[in-house]
Amino acid sequence: MIKAGIIGATGYAGAELVRLLLGHKEAQIVWYGSRSYVDKAYASVYQNMFRLVDAKCLDDNMEEMASQVDVIFTATPQGLCASLVNEDILNKVKIVDLSADFRIKDVDTYEKWYGIEHKAPQYIGEAVYGLCEVNREAVKKARLVANPGCYPTCSFLSIYPCVKEGLIDPNTIIIDAKSGTSGAGRGAKVDNLFCEVNENIKAYGVAGHRHTPEIEEQLGYAAGAPVTISFTPHLVPMQRGILVTAYASLLKDVSYEDVKAAYDKYYEKEFFVRVLEKDVCPQTRWVEGSNFVDVNFKLDPRTNRIVMMGAMDNLVKGAAGQAVQNMNLLFGLDETEGLKAAPMFP
Amino acid sequence: MIKAGIIGATGYAGAELVRLLLGHKEAQIVWYGSRSYVDKAYASVYQNMFRLVDAKCLDDNMEEMASQVDVIFTATPQGLCASLVNEDILNKVKIVDLSADFRIKDVDTYEKWYGIEHKAPQYIGEAVYGLCEVNREAVKKARLVANPGCYPTCSFLSIYPCVKEGLIDPNTIIIDAKSGTSGAGRGAKVDNLFCEVNENIKAYGVAGHRHTPEIEEQLGYAAGAPVTISFTPHLVPMQRGILVTAYASLLKDVSYEDVKAAYDKYYEKEFFVRVLEKDVCPQTRWVEGSNFVDVNFKLDPRTNRIVMMGAMDNLVKGAAGQAVQNMNLLFGLDETEGLKAAPMFP
Amino acid sequence: MIKAGIIGATGYAGAELVRLLLGHKEAQIVWYGSRSYVDKAYASVYQNMFRLVDAKCLDDNMEEMASQVDVIFTATPQGLCASLVNEDILNKVKIVDLSADFRIKDVDTYEKWYGIEHKAPQYIGEAVYGLCEVNREAVKKARLVANPGCYPTCSFLSIYPCVKEGLIDPNTIIIDAKSGTSGAGRGAKVDNLFCEVNENIKAYGVAGHRHTPEIEEQLGYAAGAPVTISFTPHLVPMQRGILVTAYASLLKDVSYEDVKAAYDKYYEKEFFVRVLEKDVCPQTRWVEGSNFVDVNFKLDPRTNRIVMMGAMDNLVKGAAGQAVQNMNLLFGLDETEGLKAAPMFP
Amino acid sequence: MIKAGIIGATGYAGAELVRLLLGHKEAQIVWYGSRSYVDKAYASVYQNMFRLVDAKCLDDNMEEMASQVDVIFTATPQGLCASLVNEDILNKVKIVDLSADFRIKDVDTYEKWYGIEHKAPQYIGEAVYGLCEVNREAVKKARLVANPGCYPTCSFLSIYPCVKEGLIDPNTIIIDAKSGTSGAGRGAKVDNLFCEVNENIKAYGVAGHRHTPEIEEQLGYAAGAPVTISFTPHLVPMQRGILVTAYASLLKDVSYEDVKAAYDKYYEKEFFVRVLEKDVCPQTRWVEGSNFVDVNFKLDPRTNRIVMMGAMDNLVKGAAGQAVQNMNLLFGLDETEGLKAAPMFP
Repeated sequence: MIKAGIIGATGYAGAELVRLLLGHKEAQIVWYGSRSYVDKAYASVYQNMFRLVDAKCLDDNMEEMASQVDVIFTATPQGLCASLVNEDILNKVKIVDLSADFRIKDVDTYEKWYGIEHKAPQYIGEAVYGLCEVNREAVKKARLVANPGCYPTCSFLSIYPCVKEGLIDPNTIIIDAKSGTSGAGRGAKVDNLFCEVNENIKAYGVAGHRHTPEIEEQLGYAAGAPVTISFTPHLVPMQRGILVTAYASLLKDVSYEDVKAAYDKYYEKEFFVRVLEKDVCPQTRWVEGSNFVDVNFKLDPRTNRIVMMGAMDNLVKGAAGQAVQNMNLLFGLDETEGLKAAPMFP
Repeated sequence: MIKAGIIGATGYAGAELVRLLLGHKEAQIVWYGSRSYVDKAYASVYQNMFRLVDAKCLDDNMEEMASQVDVIFTATPQGLCASLVNEDILNKVKIVDLSADFRIKDVDTYEKWYGIEHKAPQYIGEAVYGLCEVNREAVKKARLVANPGCYPTCSFLSIYPCVKEGLIDPNTIIIDAKSGTSGAGRGAKVDNLFCEVNENIKAYGVAGHRHTPEIEEQLGYAAGAPVTISFTPHLVPMQRGILVTAYASLLKDVSYEDVKAAYDKYYEKEFFVRVLEKDVCPQTRWVEGSNFVDVNFKLDPRTNRIVMMGAMDNLVKGAAGQAVQNMNLLFGLDETEGLKAAPMFP
Repeated sequence: MIKAGIIGATGYAGAELVRLLLGHKEAQIVWYGSRSYVDKAYASVYQNMFRLVDAKCLDDNMEEMASQVDVIFTATPQGLCASLVNEDILNKVKIVDLSADFRIKDVDTYEKWYGIEHKAPQYIGEAVYGLCEVNREAVKKARLVANPGCYPTCSFLSIYPCVKEGLIDPNTIIIDAKSGTSGAGRGAKVDNLFCEVNENIKAYGVAGHRHTPEIEEQLGYAAGAPVTISFTPHLVPMQRGILVTAYASLLKDVSYEDVKAAYDKYYEKEFFVRVLEKDVCPQTRWVEGSNFVDVNFKLDPRTNRIVMMGAMDNLVKGAAGQAVQNMNLLFGLDETEGLKAAPMFP
Repeated sequence: MIKAGIIGATGYAGAELVRLLLGHKEAQIVWYGSRSYVDKAYASVYQNMFRLVDAKCLDDNMEEMASQVDVIFTATPQGLCASLVNEDILNKVKIVDLSADFRIKDVDTYEKWYGIEHKAPQYIGEAVYGLCEVNREAVKKARLVANPGCYPTCSFLSIYPCVKEGLIDPNTIIIDAKSGTSGAGRGAKVDNLFCEVNENIKAYGVAGHRHTPEIEEQLGYAAGAPVTISFTPHLVPMQRGILVTAYASLLKDVSYEDVKAAYDKYYEKEFFVRVLEKDVCPQTRWVEGSNFVDVNFKLDPRTNRIVMMGAMDNLVKGAAGQAVQNMNLLFGLDETEGLKAAPMFP
């Protein structure tokens, strides 16, 4: 039985980790870390866990935690994991960091986009970017996994085959992404109140969102050269779900079958990536609560562009679910363990 | 492995049965019955099931189904199950009827409130009202289980201990219930359109809703005498969830501890009924997707009344989850099998 | 032209006052008071007012305001108006207080339910409870109007004819009320975040909500004797709207026509109270954005009870609209001026 | 007093026309046309109009209507207006057609994208595309106004200054649009049920939506040459509102001030187009219920692109409000009459 500790267990991503790990046969949570709620019963913060979780919240002492658990999940704002991790800890436990600290290989890029100093640049090199479908083998051998961001996961998986197979010009990629409000976290801000979010849609972080360099770096690996993209996230009045609509100019004269073959080449054997049937558009309702990413595309001969689309649950494949998937790889388990529940609808 | 057939697999309750049975270790669905979608791929109707369900929809031939399955779920409008069931079928399979056909023991009451003739009154007597927490032993031996209605399940479990222990005058009971919109089904009606339901709350079926006699009958058994109540359902702009707020006059001078003891007496050992801590009000968000019913109460000395509250997911404990719970009892399985997933939030 | 000042102009009720007064022919706002946003452009806080309101927010100096305006609206938490008002101010301006400070005639009741000391008990006597449909003539002559609470307005108007005409036993009244989330205000609290409110319904303040004594006092005047009721508010995932479902035992053997005549007696000439046609239930969607209260009732011969229902927009008739209605009375204007816009749907 | 007739008064756009015209000082509705509800009281279909509209629904006899009214609004599916209009009618009344019948100048393009034969191509030439901000003078002299589509209105106004001033390459324009569900109409379809729309976002009509050629035609006039664009609409779980996020490559090295000057050049004097302050993104909540379009832009030097954004209420500026604006122009009234209400929030 894998013993797991969570730092940031009372945020939405942390709470989703708790939900998923409670249904995992090979793991148990032994440390519910939450600086804001130390000594409070976890189930009093998340009443859905009443009678399912008896534990109280603990602090975020990573050293102490490392001596009691096999894997640490850090579901915290950027900066915390980098400020706590050290060699001693990494020798004792596996770390799956849900923050952005170890996703970007270039420390200057990280510091520029995130506006903070990186406290542990020495581990950036060894950290593995935990997009299992692409880096599966590397994850298995890692000590420190950088769990991908929500937008990057959905964006990258929607576009990857087209870039990798050279079907599109990567520098024409425009990603218009839409996210449910759980992505904004559980912090008490006026902008996230029901009456402000409901009956509203808006773009935010236009031409400056922090997930941009992460997407560009990963697409760059696929393209074999640096890539610059446009990325615009939007806030949608729903709880969960990310939808990506991405546009790019085609480099070749391709048919539906050609492009379908490219997607199948990379995803046919992937349990969590579902390439939909022709002309079926991904919708967030069909993946809610699950670790699936539904992807599809549409050719537009009028403009010589392709529209690539992807839908996933931002809290599952975009955060906690992918973290569990990474944990499964780290410990040699079936990659789908704890993640097989069908999407919930309605 | 229990082979299950579903009649009405493409309604919301039927689809929830599919979701739950896919996660059930001892059951598999071998017949997806849906008159409206015969020969269509089930996953094209419920795209969440893409790559999880390969089957096509079949008709609702109960005779044929009975020869291929061990248990039949009828998730259909009232009247259908009664019109199809016969001795031959009941000798071959167990039936869990999610409609109202066999819930009410008095056929005249059924015909008056539902406005249709009962086609199989001969089975009303043997049918067991499948409220597992109350009729557990009878269910185990049944051939035909009448799965309780959504409002009756939540109403009854919220009130039961107070009636059974004689704490309240049953004829003063007023039940004000609120339901998410999935309870209205997947039929294409203007009243259920997004723009009509959203930003709206309304009462409906005032002083005439069909669940009234069902609640009265069950409360009558608990009280040991006929009971007449007020019951008003409301439609709430959310997908899932029922909240019951029930009022009654106290017959005795009781303390919080007295009443708490009554609730504990009946529910302490029940996995799916959670009596909340003092002053914590049930909320539908804390049970979504699960088979839990959260109940609690508040004494009001000013009025000498008690307010009894309950929250559950109308599609799970109020329909498909309770049906699976009944199936587990019918086949001697752990009652919680397939129903242990924690509630999903947010 | 009436010059108006608003204390608390950046709360939801204050913002609704701004919206309504912008459309009022005889009034103009000259003071946008908001302690939290002093010196900030009002339109930067409420971007809907961009290019419609050029003013900056000012402080809540009631003395100074009184020398510049004809009417002051206090859309603030309880306690503030009472702490600021004095004889000098009341000699200069009319005050419409949207808080609870002057609604309850018994100061002990106020202090017990609100848990604060009343700072200006000397004005409780002269303050007029501004439910225009009942106290129209008194309002016209007032200096200080206590604008009714949202729940009390909807509850009282739904029940009033039955109590006044002696059709029901007032002490059997049970009010089950449901409110949209704007009623909870614009404060940044976790409980009011989109992800907490959406897909959820809950009761709150059970057997202890502060609007209870206000409803009881007003019903007591109608009954001619003290009244004790049960009142339970609920939070609904919608922005605006209050629905009241009220239950009471009938004292007389009455027909639909008898009760309809009672409602018509009090409301036939009222522009803002619409008694719906037989069997049509009030719904919040049909009054959104307007000053209407839709009421209706249903007799239940089985229980000898009546179900009384009312729907209104909590920010309009439940707050800012009623305040403007009171202002119109105070200044001898047409009572409907600025309030004639039809409800907005969808 | 202008006498108005509405064909299609019981659709969402028709109902919004009713709401707006009720508040218009110079117009009155004398014909509520609705084939589906002939002889039914209008207020029984839209209960918000109870006691505000006494009329019954009439049929859609345009000949007869033309003899009784001054202006006819056709708020119907494409094809109907073209099939009814004739010289006799046009000599008697002004027509504002909210359908697509007369928006596109090339009949082949219309027939190809809409898949129906055009029944009155002889009037396409004289019909004026009723985007008041661009075609104001032409509208004033028209007999037949083609009221622009919802997506085209918001898309065009967001992009227009950049195209007109030659700042961007029109053939690089990609429009990613998001609409509330009222845009889908009041037809009873499963896809528009609350439980299907809520908690969901999806693209639809990818690379084939019928508003594409309308946008291209209008942008072509601005560019002075044919334009081909990508246009993708999405369905958002909200009632009203369209948000457009449009991308294009810059042709010149421009500063914020340069582009701002271009927007101001065209919109400074426009009451209904609000160019927001720097870095303020348009949001649908700030325009709900009003005829405003809020626009803004963001330069992205990294990609040499510009992101152009616009938000409006699809039922007002995107349908009924713009129709009233056109009516005002047709009859020489103040263009803002009946349209001055501030946006409603929350």
